[in-house]
Amino acid sequence: MQTELSRRLGIEHAVFGFTPFPAVAAAISRAGGLGVLGAVRYADPGALHRDLDWIEARTGGRPYGLDVVMPARKVEGVTEADVEAMIPDGHRRFVEETLARHGVPGLGPGDRSGWRITGWMEDVARAQLDVAFDHPIALLANALGPPPADVVARAHAHGILVAALAGSARHAVRHAEAGIDIVVAQGYEAGGHTGEIATMVLTPEVVHAVDPLPVLAAGGIGGGEQIAAGLALGAQGVWLGSLWLTTDEAELHSPALTAKLLAAGSGDTVRSRALTGKPARQLRTAWTDAWDDPDGPGPLPMPLQGLLVAEALSRIQRYEAAPLLGTPVGQIVGRMTSRRPVQAVFDELTRDFTRAVARLGRIAGGTEGA
Amino acid sequence: MQTELSRRLGIEHAVFGFTPFPAVAAAISRAGGLGVLGAVRYADPGALHRDLDWIEARTGGRPYGLDVVMPARKVEGVTEADVEAMIPDGHRRFVEETLARHGVPGLGPGDRSGWRITGWMEDVARAQLDVAFDHPIALLANALGPPPADVVARAHAHGILVAALAGSARHAVRHAEAGIDIVVAQGYEAGGHTGEIATMVLTPEVVHAVDPLPVLAAGGIGGGEQIAAGLALGAQGVWLGSLWLTTDEAELHSPALTAKLLAAGSGDTVRSRALTGKPARQLRTAWTDAWDDPDGPGPLPMPLQGLLVAEALSRIQRYEAAPLLGTPVGQIVGRMTSRRPVQAVFDELTRDFTRAVARLGRIAGGTEGA
Repeated sequence: MQTELSRRLGIEHAVFGFTPFPAVAAAISRAGGLGVLGAVRYADPGALHRDLDWIEARTGGRPYGLDVVMPARKVEGVTEADVEAMIPDGHRRFVEETLARHGVPGLGPGDRSGWRITGWMEDVARAQLDVAFDHPIALLANALGPPPADVVARAHAHGILVAALAGSARHAVRHAEAGIDIVVAQGYEAGGHTGEIATMVLTPEVVHAVDPLPVLAAGGIGGGEQIAAGLALGAQGVWLGSLWLTTDEAELHSPALTAKLLAAGSGDTVRSRALTGKPARQLRTAWTDAWDDPDGPGPLPMPLQGLLVAEALSRIQRYEAAPLLGTPVGQIVGRMTSRRPVQAVFDELTRDFTRAVARLGRIAGGTEGA
Repeated sequence: MQTELSRRLGIEHAVFGFTPFPAVAAAISRAGGLGVLGAVRYADPGALHRDLDWIEARTGGRPYGLDVVMPARKVEGVTEADVEAMIPDGHRRFVEETLARHGVPGLGPGDRSGWRITGWMEDVARAQLDVAFDHPIALLANALGPPPADVVARAHAHGILVAALAGSARHAVRHAEAGIDIVVAQGYEAGGHTGEIATMVLTPEVVHAVDPLPVLAAGGIGGGEQIAAGLALGAQGVWLGSLWLTTDEAELHSPALTAKLLAAGSGDTVRSRALTGKPARQLRTAWTDAWDDPDGPGPLPMPLQGLLVAEALSRIQRYEAAPLLGTPVGQIVGRMTSRRPVQAVFDELTRDFTRAVARLGRIAGGTEGA
């Protein structure tokens, strides 16, 4: 599965796998795709350093990438404490009341607030980048549009391609003007932050808008026939995130969450501001229902909501409070019905891709069903 | 572009074109697709008879179809007057106030309430069917799931294939159990009534769920690369509705509405209950904003909302009240940027489909970008 972009990156298949788990990223790269590690949960640059070393030791020189969450514009002189102070008391009470209603205890003295979403803070992201540029990463992706200009320049000086996620053609054009190399067109059905435009419509729009920049199709892709569809839409590769959450290598550390993912159907996600303050697709849970309830206080804007709920999410995960337990995931979750190694998932993707393309060739050639 | 289904129907291309306009339906069938006329606006069976005769005279024996809006379960003994009586006065006042705010006059004595949505009434739909079965239609589609069992049996006795729209795999399975022949998997991005699941995810889900029944992919399809994507997802054909609204043959009779459609981007639609009471994608307008305003009374359930707003929509159209003027249309509206004959649109679809499949073959074969 070769495109101009996959050749440029030296990968066998134009499949880009986003994941928060080093073992998944390494396995994707070993399988011939490009594993992209999400950096947002690494508040400690040392831990990121160790995990990138770990990936490198297991990919045998095959390329891999890093995904950061970095706003293009710097907010000068604002500390985490400043932002914390902007959170209304009523919202803090609502968090505690919701947790109490489900009997979720507080964290113990030894518990870490592991999923704290602080990666959006510019200083945290910059510390992550210092670590990243010490490693031979092939791709730097940013979930919040283009990184700041100096970061793009620094990446290019290291020979690193820069990718930015976009939910509309207008945003994609703005990203392209900021000097990035690849646009990830993230459709409505995708897990995490999404806009309203579905992958089927968004992908060709973005391809035309930023031509000749390469575009990756993201959202709703979890099978070989969907890879074929994404590439048919003009993309030079596909970006898959959800699918890896139920692989053997994924370190969710939560049997209850894994069980929920395996049981969920395509209709069991919701695009909600409950997680970060911006609309992000995730499992629908009692937690998202509480935030989306018109009688509740509703989510705060980014970045307040992320800070407000960080500890609560850690508590929900620590105690596996099943009704509240969720994760960002796309509508493709309906297809994730068994735990398997990354390699088995990847083999099925490439096999079904080949089948879908062969069938399409017969349809176009007039021999299908003849 | 041949699939098992297109062979069975005797059409050259597996492209199904839904349209409320006879001239568009005839042109689609002439171009080698299957034109499907929407019957919902024909309150008068005589007019439908004339228009089907007209289509037949212009398709030279090529197949065409009819789309009705018929609930699977009959509501016994309920008249239009009974339903009218269920509409709260506050909602009637809200309609008048919204029209008054935009200076929309009442209808004159000679004006017909042309777009009255009465086709959902069982007796109207049955009168339409009596007309349909007098014509050699190849396909009977129903927008509200499977038609009643006796209608399916009658269609089959005439050798007519029956199709039903579905927005989820669960609904598709129910439709299949009702004995229909084709499922139209209608994705979130489609115009008209839609569910939440995007075409990219919905199509393969429905294909697997109803196998071996053939599935048409609907929603977000307006270009040859999107046809390739829809077929890559396992569909045996594609169902396009929005794209034809700006063709030369479309009889919108409203320069203002045509101008709005040509100017709209993919982000200018909304999935709203303003039109029928069920979520339907349409142009976002001051009218949909008024109904979706949390401070307003909000839409009534189907079929009340359709009856409530029928005359108002006729007035908005009669006087071309631009800010209020809308129509069901999918996110693909962003691609509709010029008025062209159906044949030109169709030629571009098949040409770009062939190109997309050829590129995909090079990607799979490892020769793309080499």
